[in-house]
Amino acid sequence: MTAPNRNVLWAHALVDELAAAGVDAVCITPGSRSTPLTEAFDDHDDVHVFSHLDERSSAFFALGRARRTGDVTPLVCTSGTAAANFHPAVIEASQSRVPLLVLTADRPPEIRDSGANQTIDQEKLYGDAVRWYKDVAEPEATPRKLRSLRTTAARALAKATGTPAGPVHLNLPFRKPLEPVEVEGDVPGDLPELAESGRDEAFVTTTEGVPELDDDTLRDVADRLSEPRGLVVAGPADAPGVEREALAAFAHATGFPILADPLSGVRFGGHVRVAPVVGGYDGFLDPSVTESWPDPDVVLRVGASPTSKPLRKYLGRVDAEQLVVDPAAGWREAEFTATDLVVADPSRLMGRLSRLLAGPGSPEWRRRWEDADATHESVAAGAAESEAFEGRVLADVFELAPDPATVFVSNSMPVRDADRFAAPSTKSLTVLGNRGASGIDGIVSTALGAGSATTDELTLVTGDIAYYHDMNGLLAIGRSDVDATIVLVNNDGGGIFHMLPIEAFDPPFTSQFKTPHGLDFEPSADLYGLSFARVDADDREGFREAYETATRSDGSHVIAVTVDAEESHGVREEIRQRVVDGLRG
Amino acid sequence: MTAPNRNVLWAHALVDELAAAGVDAVCITPGSRSTPLTEAFDDHDDVHVFSHLDERSSAFFALGRARRTGDVTPLVCTSGTAAANFHPAVIEASQSRVPLLVLTADRPPEIRDSGANQTIDQEKLYGDAVRWYKDVAEPEATPRKLRSLRTTAARALAKATGTPAGPVHLNLPFRKPLEPVEVEGDVPGDLPELAESGRDEAFVTTTEGVPELDDDTLRDVADRLSEPRGLVVAGPADAPGVEREALAAFAHATGFPILADPLSGVRFGGHVRVAPVVGGYDGFLDPSVTESWPDPDVVLRVGASPTSKPLRKYLGRVDAEQLVVDPAAGWREAEFTATDLVVADPSRLMGRLSRLLAGPGSPEWRRRWEDADATHESVAAGAAESEAFEGRVLADVFELAPDPATVFVSNSMPVRDADRFAAPSTKSLTVLGNRGASGIDGIVSTALGAGSATTDELTLVTGDIAYYHDMNGLLAIGRSDVDATIVLVNNDGGGIFHMLPIEAFDPPFTSQFKTPHGLDFEPSADLYGLSFARVDADDREGFREAYETATRSDGSHVIAVTVDAEESHGVREEIRQRVVDGLRG
Repeated sequence: MTAPNRNVLWAHALVDELAAAGVDAVCITPGSRSTPLTEAFDDHDDVHVFSHLDERSSAFFALGRARRTGDVTPLVCTSGTAAANFHPAVIEASQSRVPLLVLTADRPPEIRDSGANQTIDQEKLYGDAVRWYKDVAEPEATPRKLRSLRTTAARALAKATGTPAGPVHLNLPFRKPLEPVEVEGDVPGDLPELAESGRDEAFVTTTEGVPELDDDTLRDVADRLSEPRGLVVAGPADAPGVEREALAAFAHATGFPILADPLSGVRFGGHVRVAPVVGGYDGFLDPSVTESWPDPDVVLRVGASPTSKPLRKYLGRVDAEQLVVDPAAGWREAEFTATDLVVADPSRLMGRLSRLLAGPGSPEWRRRWEDADATHESVAAGAAESEAFEGRVLADVFELAPDPATVFVSNSMPVRDADRFAAPSTKSLTVLGNRGASGIDGIVSTALGAGSATTDELTLVTGDIAYYHDMNGLLAIGRSDVDATIVLVNNDGGGIFHMLPIEAFDPPFTSQFKTPHGLDFEPSADLYGLSFARVDADDREGFREAYETATRSDGSHVIAVTVDAEESHGVREEIRQRVVDGLRG
Repeated sequence: MTAPNRNVLWAHALVDELAAAGVDAVCITPGSRSTPLTEAFDDHDDVHVFSHLDERSSAFFALGRARRTGDVTPLVCTSGTAAANFHPAVIEASQSRVPLLVLTADRPPEIRDSGANQTIDQEKLYGDAVRWYKDVAEPEATPRKLRSLRTTAARALAKATGTPAGPVHLNLPFRKPLEPVEVEGDVPGDLPELAESGRDEAFVTTTEGVPELDDDTLRDVADRLSEPRGLVVAGPADAPGVEREALAAFAHATGFPILADPLSGVRFGGHVRVAPVVGGYDGFLDPSVTESWPDPDVVLRVGASPTSKPLRKYLGRVDAEQLVVDPAAGWREAEFTATDLVVADPSRLMGRLSRLLAGPGSPEWRRRWEDADATHESVAAGAAESEAFEGRVLADVFELAPDPATVFVSNSMPVRDADRFAAPSTKSLTVLGNRGASGIDGIVSTALGAGSATTDELTLVTGDIAYYHDMNGLLAIGRSDVDATIVLVNNDGGGIFHMLPIEAFDPPFTSQFKTPHGLDFEPSADLYGLSFARVDADDREGFREAYETATRSDGSHVIAVTVDAEESHGVREEIRQRVVDGLRG
C-alpha cells in the first residue's frame, strides 16, 4: 500500500516496527489527535486492540498484561490530560519494573503553549519514572526520518524490556489531517522498502546481556554462602521472576529454607515438592519467638523488599551477612542491614552457585523453619474451621483456585492475608499484585489485563476501596472479553487502618480513615452485566461453593464477602498469639 | 494545647496558618502517611473536610470548588501513586488558572529510593504544571523551622492565587509516629506563640498588585480602540472573570458588540439588558456569510481562547488589529493573528478605558451582529420546535435553569452546544467547564465541587463518556452532601467523532472512535442512591418536565436523555445552513 499522507505512513511504519519486534496487543482510548496511531494499530493484522474509555484503567490494563507476560503492551492516548491519567500506572510500572510503552499523541510544536485547545505540556510528563523519553520527530516521508522512527521504536522496546524493565514514553506530534485522507505530494512514490508496512523482520534488533559475575567473584560469593544457617528471601518478583528450576537447584545445593513472598513467583509450583519453601513467616517471625533462635549466618535476597513487615523487621534485627541480588543495581532494602549488593541476574547466579555449593545448610536450622511454618499452618487452619475473618477468604481462594490459575491480590489487606494465610503448594498459580508503589488504584484493570494474556482462570481478590477506586475497569470484562472471578472482601471502608495506632483516635478515625461508605456493590455488577453473589463471611461453605461455582462456569462473577474488619484483625492477632505461644512453649 | 509530638505540632501549625488566611475547606483521601495533616484539618473548627476515596475525583472536586469561588481548596493525599492521581486536575488547574494547593505526604528522605513500601519519587511530580513546588522541611519543634513552615504556607497561598492563579505543590515528609501519640521531649514547653493553633491572624500576609498600564500607554490603547468597527471577544474566564460592571461600562463607552463565550462569565447576567452580548456567533460566522461583511477594525480579546472554532477561524481570517489582554502575559491565541499583547488586569483596563472612550462604535456594525444573532436564535428556536437533537437539550436547560443557578457543561459536545444554543439572558447563571485542557476526565467531580461552594441549584450537563469516566465522583453526592441535577446526554459513545473526517473510515470509526458501550446507566444511580429518569430526545416536553421537577425537588437526580449523535449533527448542520441562507439571502 502507498500511504495517503505522511501521518498514515509514519504511524504505520511505527506500528509495523513494533509488530515485527513481537508486539501483539495495544491498549487504546479514543481521541482525535491520536487518530494516525489508532488507525495504524487497528489496521495491523497481528496486533490485537484493547479499546478502553478511561485512560487510567487502560494504562493499568496494559500494565497487568505486561506484568503477566513480561512483554511490552503499548498504550495510546490523545493529547491533554488523557496522558496524565496514565501517570499512576507509569509509576507502578517503573517501581515494579514492568515494560510499558506509552505513546502519547501531541500537537505539533508551533501550537504548543499558545492557548490551542486540549494542548498541554507533555514533554517529560512522567519525570524520572520512565526509562526513556523522546519527543519524536514530526512525521515526514523521507528515508532518514523513517529510519530514525524505526530505530526509535526498536530502542523504545529495548529500553522498556532492558534491565531494569520499565515504562518508556514516546511523545508523537501530528499535524492535520489526522485521518487517512489523500494529501497530494505528501508521500513520494520512490521511498525505500522501510517505508512499507508488512515487512517480515525488524529494522533494528536489540539484544541485551544481563549482568553476570566473573568466576572469581562468583567463588567468593559461594564461599560467603557456605554457612550452616543460610536463608533465601524471595521478595516480589520482577517479571518474569526467578526461574523455579534455578531456585530449586540452589535450594538443593544449599539446603537453605526459602522464605517466599506470595508475589515472588516461587511460593507455588512443582518445585515446592523438592524445595523447602516457607510461607508462614509473616505469622511466626515474632521477636518473642526468634529471640531464642540463633541468627542466620547469611541471607540471600532476591526480588523487591518483602511484603511482610514481620519479615522485614526480622531481617533488620538479626546479625547476618545479607546479600541483596539485583540485576539493575537497585537498592531494595529499607532496613539498611544488607551488607552486600550483588549486581547479577538472580536466576543465572543461583544456577551457577548451585554448581559450586555442597550442601552447607544445617538440617536443624532448616527444620526449625519448617516446624515453625507447620505450627503456623496448623493454627491458621484450626482457626479457619471456626472463625470468620478475611484471612480465611484468602486461604480458601488459594486452596480452591483451579490449577493452573492466575490470582491477583489487591493492596491493603488481601496481599497481606495472602502472605500470611496462603500456604505454599505445588499448584501452578501465578500470583500477582501491584507491589511497586502499593497503590489501591487500578487494581481491577491490572487484574483484567493480566487475565487477557493467559488462558488461566483469573481470580481477583480485592478490598472494597480498591474495587471502588477502579470500578471503571470492569468495563473491560465485556469490552475486551476477559472473564474473571472477583472476590470482593467488603469491610465497608479502609479496614487496614484498624491495624494502625490512629484507631485509638476517633475522631478522626471513623470519618477520615476507616471512611465507611455503606455502598452495596450489586449495582456495579448490574451495570456491566456480571453475576453477583453476596456471602456473609460467617458462611464459609457458602463462600467456598460460590467461589468454586464461579471458577467453573463461564462469564464473570462478583462474590461480595461481607466481613468485619475489626473482628478480622482480632482473629489475625489471636492466631499470631497462638502460634507464638506454641513456638515459645 | 501542647502538641504530643512534632508531627502534630507541624501539621497543626500549617493548617492554622492556612485557616488564618481564609482557607475554609479541604479535600482529603484516606491514607497513613498523611495522618498528621488529616488529623490537623479534621481538628480545625473553621475548615470543612470533604472526604473522598478516589484521589482523581478528590482533586477535581477541589478544582471545581476553587473554580467556583476563586479561593484555594487544599488537597491532601498519602504517599505513592495517590499523588499521581491528582495529576490530571493539577494540569487542568494550571491551564485554566484555578488556585489549588496540593499537599502530598511523603516518606522522610532516608527511606526514599530504598525499596521502602509505597514510596515513590514525589519531587516535582507535576513538573512545570505548578506555580511553585517545595519539598517542605522535616517537622521539628524549633522556632525557626516553625516560622519557615508558616511562611511557606503563606507563600503557597499567594502563589496559588497570584497572577496567573494555579496549582502549588508542597511535599511534606513525615516520620513515624504519625498519630497524635505522646513522644517525650519531641515538643519543648517553651516554644513561642507561633507554635500554637488558634491564632487570630496570619503570620505572613501577602498582598499582590495586578499589572496596570500607565496613563500614556492607556491612552494609546484607547486611541487604537477608537474605531467604528470594534469587537470584544470574551473567552473562557479565569476565576473570578471579568467584572460584568466593567464590561457593561466598556460596552456603553464603545458600542462594540461583545461575543461572549458560554464560559466567559458574561453571557448571562443583568448586564445583558444594557450591553450588546452576542451568543450565536458559533452558528453564523460562516465564511460564506462574513465574506460580504467588512472586517472589524479592532478586536479586544479577554479570557482564554474561545471555545467556538468558527469564531477562532473568523478571527484568524479577518484583517484587524487584535489586542489580547492577559494579566499574566500568557499567549492564548493559536491562530497567531493577534497584533498586540496587553499585559493588564482586564476588568481594571476596561473600566479605565471606559472613561477615555466616546462611543466610537458604528451602530450599523453593531446591528449587523445583533441581526445575525437574532437570525440564528430564531432558526434554532424553530428547529427546536420540531427536531430532536442534543443542542435542544442544552437550550432547554439554559432556558429552564433556576435563577440563580450554577450550570456545569462537560467537554466534547455539551460545551459546544451551550456555546451555540444557549442564548444570552439576564438570568444570574454561573456557567463553568473544564476548558483549560478540555479533558473529559473529572467532570462529575468538578461540577460537584463547584456545587459544594454555592447555594445555587447545580446542573451538570454531560455526555455519556465523560459521565462514565468520573462515575466515581458521584460518591460525593451522598458523602459531601452536594445536590445536583445531572443531565446525561447519552449518545452511546463518542458522538463528537461524527464531526471529524474519521467518520468516513469504518473501520476503525465505530470500534475505535465512536466506541459504543451500550451501557444503561440506571445502576450507577442505584449505586449512589440517586433518582434516575430516562427520556427519549424526541420527547421534549418529557425532558423539560423532568428537568424542572428535578431542579425543584430535593436530592440528586440523573436524567438520561437518549439521543442519536449522527442525527444531532445533521440537525446542527441543517440549522447552520438555514442561518447561512438567511443571512446571505
